[in-house]
Amino acid sequence: MKKLDVAVLGATGMVGQRFIKLLENHPWFRVAEVIGSDRSAGRRYGDAVRWVLDEDAPSEVLDLEVKPLDADFNSMLVFSALPKEAAMPREMELAEAGHIVCTNASAYRMTEDVPILLPEVNGDQLALVDEQRKKRGWSGALVANSNCTSVPGVMTLAPLRQFGITKVLITSQQALSGAGHPGVPSLDAMDNVIPYVPGEEEKVEAETLKMLGRYDGGAILHHDAVVSATCTRVPVIDGHMVSISVQLDHDPGMDGIIEAWTNFRGVDPISSLPSAPAQPVIYRSQPDRPQTRRDRMAGNGMSTTAGRLRRCPILTYKYVALSHNTIRGAAGCSILNAEYMAVMGYIAEFQPAVGAAI
Amino acid sequence: MKKLDVAVLGATGMVGQRFIKLLENHPWFRVAEVIGSDRSAGRRYGDAVRWVLDEDAPSEVLDLEVKPLDADFNSMLVFSALPKEAAMPREMELAEAGHIVCTNASAYRMTEDVPILLPEVNGDQLALVDEQRKKRGWSGALVANSNCTSVPGVMTLAPLRQFGITKVLITSQQALSGAGHPGVPSLDAMDNVIPYVPGEEEKVEAETLKMLGRYDGGAILHHDAVVSATCTRVPVIDGHMVSISVQLDHDPGMDGIIEAWTNFRGVDPISSLPSAPAQPVIYRSQPDRPQTRRDRMAGNGMSTTAGRLRRCPILTYKYVALSHNTIRGAAGCSILNAEYMAVMGYIAEFQPAVGAAI
Amino acid sequence: MKKLDVAVLGATGMVGQRFIKLLENHPWFRVAEVIGSDRSAGRRYGDAVRWVLDEDAPSEVLDLEVKPLDADFNSMLVFSALPKEAAMPREMELAEAGHIVCTNASAYRMTEDVPILLPEVNGDQLALVDEQRKKRGWSGALVANSNCTSVPGVMTLAPLRQFGITKVLITSQQALSGAGHPGVPSLDAMDNVIPYVPGEEEKVEAETLKMLGRYDGGAILHHDAVVSATCTRVPVIDGHMVSISVQLDHDPGMDGIIEAWTNFRGVDPISSLPSAPAQPVIYRSQPDRPQTRRDRMAGNGMSTTAGRLRRCPILTYKYVALSHNTIRGAAGCSILNAEYMAVMGYIAEFQPAVGAAI
Amino acid sequence: MKKLDVAVLGATGMVGQRFIKLLENHPWFRVAEVIGSDRSAGRRYGDAVRWVLDEDAPSEVLDLEVKPLDADFNSMLVFSALPKEAAMPREMELAEAGHIVCTNASAYRMTEDVPILLPEVNGDQLALVDEQRKKRGWSGALVANSNCTSVPGVMTLAPLRQFGITKVLITSQQALSGAGHPGVPSLDAMDNVIPYVPGEEEKVEAETLKMLGRYDGGAILHHDAVVSATCTRVPVIDGHMVSISVQLDHDPGMDGIIEAWTNFRGVDPISSLPSAPAQPVIYRSQPDRPQTRRDRMAGNGMSTTAGRLRRCPILTYKYVALSHNTIRGAAGCSILNAEYMAVMGYIAEFQPAVGAAI
Repeated sequence: MKKLDVAVLGATGMVGQRFIKLLENHPWFRVAEVIGSDRSAGRRYGDAVRWVLDEDAPSEVLDLEVKPLDADFNSMLVFSALPKEAAMPREMELAEAGHIVCTNASAYRMTEDVPILLPEVNGDQLALVDEQRKKRGWSGALVANSNCTSVPGVMTLAPLRQFGITKVLITSQQALSGAGHPGVPSLDAMDNVIPYVPGEEEKVEAETLKMLGRYDGGAILHHDAVVSATCTRVPVIDGHMVSISVQLDHDPGMDGIIEAWTNFRGVDPISSLPSAPAQPVIYRSQPDRPQTRRDRMAGNGMSTTAGRLRRCPILTYKYVALSHNTIRGAAGCSILNAEYMAVMGYIAEFQPAVGAAI
Repeated sequence: MKKLDVAVLGATGMVGQRFIKLLENHPWFRVAEVIGSDRSAGRRYGDAVRWVLDEDAPSEVLDLEVKPLDADFNSMLVFSALPKEAAMPREMELAEAGHIVCTNASAYRMTEDVPILLPEVNGDQLALVDEQRKKRGWSGALVANSNCTSVPGVMTLAPLRQFGITKVLITSQQALSGAGHPGVPSLDAMDNVIPYVPGEEEKVEAETLKMLGRYDGGAILHHDAVVSATCTRVPVIDGHMVSISVQLDHDPGMDGIIEAWTNFRGVDPISSLPSAPAQPVIYRSQPDRPQTRRDRMAGNGMSTTAGRLRRCPILTYKYVALSHNTIRGAAGCSILNAEYMAVMGYIAEFQPAVGAAI
Repeated sequence: MKKLDVAVLGATGMVGQRFIKLLENHPWFRVAEVIGSDRSAGRRYGDAVRWVLDEDAPSEVLDLEVKPLDADFNSMLVFSALPKEAAMPREMELAEAGHIVCTNASAYRMTEDVPILLPEVNGDQLALVDEQRKKRGWSGALVANSNCTSVPGVMTLAPLRQFGITKVLITSQQALSGAGHPGVPSLDAMDNVIPYVPGEEEKVEAETLKMLGRYDGGAILHHDAVVSATCTRVPVIDGHMVSISVQLDHDPGMDGIIEAWTNFRGVDPISSLPSAPAQPVIYRSQPDRPQTRRDRMAGNGMSTTAGRLRRCPILTYKYVALSHNTIRGAAGCSILNAEYMAVMGYIAEFQPAVGAAI
Repeated sequence: MKKLDVAVLGATGMVGQRFIKLLENHPWFRVAEVIGSDRSAGRRYGDAVRWVLDEDAPSEVLDLEVKPLDADFNSMLVFSALPKEAAMPREMELAEAGHIVCTNASAYRMTEDVPILLPEVNGDQLALVDEQRKKRGWSGALVANSNCTSVPGVMTLAPLRQFGITKVLITSQQALSGAGHPGVPSLDAMDNVIPYVPGEEEKVEAETLKMLGRYDGGAILHHDAVVSATCTRVPVIDGHMVSISVQLDHDPGMDGIIEAWTNFRGVDPISSLPSAPAQPVIYRSQPDRPQTRRDRMAGNGMSTTAGRLRRCPILTYKYVALSHNTIRGAAGCSILNAEYMAVMGYIAEFQPAVGAAI
């Protein structure tokens, strides 16, 4: 079976680079087209990009010519790392034109018929694409991934839905890469905590409930818990840590929670997808784990690591959780979403068998 | 008037160094004796100390001979930066022997007749010293200062007691200097968040309520709010930031809270003491302040900076606050405590007039 | 005597902020006018500036209106923190119009009749201003300060000129603030060394020799040593460290070098100027000093700290030296230059007596 | 073919952990025994070790029992990460007892008949083991790897020996991991350069010349260049950067040098060994490379990256080079040394065919 050609929108930015790096040697997908801003369009990708990731760019992508944002292109599957404003009109146009758009942009996350897909958590919400197609007459699709800061919360809360979540209080310690490149100036970052990330608390509070919601009758019923978020920026490179206090209707005991996390998988065949981690939520029992630098790459950056579970004197339990913000919290999640869409038959004429090396 | 000779216990450690540095050019006190561990005793201070503060040690202290912990010494006023175990028997012995002991150790903070003194917050609790003397037959006294992580919470909660505090949820982003020197290895600190500080959450939860309590009938009635704390270590040098959600019985509105903070002073003559800041709690209205590096030295490290006040969907309000952990959270607070004791007549034969340059 | 009104060009940038902060409470000068880019012009300084220094801006400057770069203004004395391109025409125009321009820009440093003034090192070169006025018909003047990276080298080499310097090999470890704000992105700075600072090596090699030169017959004879520089950027906030190997014609012995450094003062009355440090070059004998964070503020950021003097197997000696890059290496030096010009009679109708509080 | 059992001495320290991590899934070797200090002996490795690497420990090693330093053990091949003092007697005893000891300790590096083996550079010096055996009557062997700071210099100087190296001036910017764990306290490391690493400059100056020397008549003739080193510690986690100026008798031109680096391989079959990098020295032409964080893992941490080659006004050329200090500069190099010894027949009864998956 031939690999599926894919296009990366916003390919020169930091999340665009992550897409390209994570797609290197991907068993199903192959980066065939890169789309950039006017500044980059027409240039060789290797010349246009200021590569900022620690590992080098895949050599086969360096020679691609960057296409302008409004170009026609051939790839049916599109990964978008566009900034919100650029994403706004273009992603809709592409979905309408028949492309499968898996986007990291926040532009349409709260749009009613666009799922914020985290397959293990809400794979059922992928059915919203049927509504998109029916309602909008699209042959394509538009699927968002989560805001990076919501991920460690949502991944660890999803297995607790069965116990009746009513209140969630989240405080984040977020990494610098969440702001992209150039992003936070080093003079603001070094030896400093900035307890403010513009717009982030509102996103975490709203998107968390949509993601934890359930699909019913062609729409998502948002979860009805109350979420309160405080977002802070700390001087680490990658990895968003959160401290969470959660109120539960039914108390399963500490062991019950750890068991729920450890056994959490999502429905078949999600755990067999190429980018799916062996264990989506890992609980570490050492008192000083997770640690940002040491645990962010768990499951190749796709696992969430929880720790320090203990009773909360105000709500029911408190704990900490960590996810890699540019892998599971951005590009890696979008790729997993596309894999899930492929096996579920949403990508016309491309339906790999799970586990099959193409 | 002659300056009062003081002794510093644990003088070679990091907090001991802070005591010595903050007492340089103090208008009332003069470091006359330095007490150290067996390793240091008998040596010149300048030779025994591995000075780690950024500003140099005062030259007049460098030539003092370090005395052993069990030495007799002359200074009536003693600042203690001893580790808990060493503090355990020695501080009591000294208070019994007539010394005024202002300690940074945690050993006796929760002892019933030992106040954890933050003058603006609970200056009335100094009266506990009368109980100490009556009950224990001491001519001296033992007064603790707060755990460093509790300070930004307590300083900003104290002005809100009038509104009926019932629940407080605190998440800290603490500095490396809180662990002393050598403390946290750089390989654990760099590019990392460690969401665990041994014993700290318990201290914050207990000491906060004692500090916020009121003095009544010879004892402290602890505040009856519920406190839940999560403590994390982040890679900054100095300054403990906390995110707080608080539930209030009476809602004074955002302006009412900011006004309470801005006008908070403590009873006379506290605000006129040499180490007292002009404004104990500063509210900054910029959305991205306080910041650890840029605000930790507010009020020479003795002010607490609050910011980001907003409604909490779960409790009533949420905000962030920052205090310098080795100044207001340790040595600076003990010195302020001693100043307050002096003007209140607790140091025999030494009662400076406030505002007087000696 | 009334303080002299001064204008700051490029007042909203990082070096502009340093000028404003260092001039707060200056005994002779008072910031009366602030000049900024088109983006800032017409706005209140406090609104236009994104203040990045750790200490707050002086309140009296916050309410000044930012004037555009081409505005006429009244202050005879002008401190310029303009970027090179903006400095290019404007500084010359202002000198011609009668202003005394003390600039941090690199635009004219290598211009034949513009001195790069480091008073202790080459105070005699101030006489070049007479040539400027004669040759160009100016009533004003244009005086540059050194490139920040050259300072620790030049300050420690100047006292060694008497021993016949022939070769100098310099490797720098430079601070992030040398690139201004926003400057180096945190994702490039954290946990990283960037062994390249565009244009810096050429500047260090050329400017060092001009500064170490001597004034003779209306011109500067550049020093004839050979300088080889390597410039690297390391993740520290402030403070440029350099490692130097130097070849000398006459070997004064280690003690002779330390003595030359320790006694180095510059001609009278330089050491009595308000911004002059008590000791321009401090030698620290501890094997692990200077350290960037602990020594950069020596002499209020105006002293250079040397250490680790030892024989070099290839040239004669090697040592390390450290200067604060935005104080002695930028704004602080320009202010010292202006003070020196004032006492030497170069600022018409303003000649303070040294040591006099105005 | 069965994998060869190996023992790791000093297995709980940071370099010991690197050995264990790098040997996970090694095609020829298998960690069968771990030896630790008295504090660890008798305990399960997983309980005794405080694991500090970012990737987790291999699970199969966690259950090994730590043996005491003086224990007998079975593994013929021994990797030693002992501190110098512990290495002193023990490594000699083990070699005498027939073990092949590949050590990271500095104890015997300058011993006449012990090679400091960097296979690509001085593979011929392995013949010294024959002298060891002849002279000392050993059936085992003792082979050292380089001091971590010498590596980037030696790797890039080796290909230039053909041009007649006469003088080498090195300034390092070394990583924190070079000091082990706990090593440098974070309060000393953050926002700081410490221009001093005890004993390091002497090691670099001496060991470099031994490594670059040639084997002749049963002994190593040290290279006769003059080396001058300055060692500084900067706040990066891993990766030692050096700036080098070198004087050459014959100038091959810039292209000649880059070609010498790019083609440098070492004699067969070194480049086919399992741990050998595809390219030992990589030259990057971008002006701002190598960078510590972005290039330290080149060749899985076994390649040295050079950059910024340009003329030196004092010596002939200058450039920068970077090697991973705990991989190529420590454990990784020792493993490569053992692989080389195996294929060269120095490990009795174990001689793998190169390239063969066992």
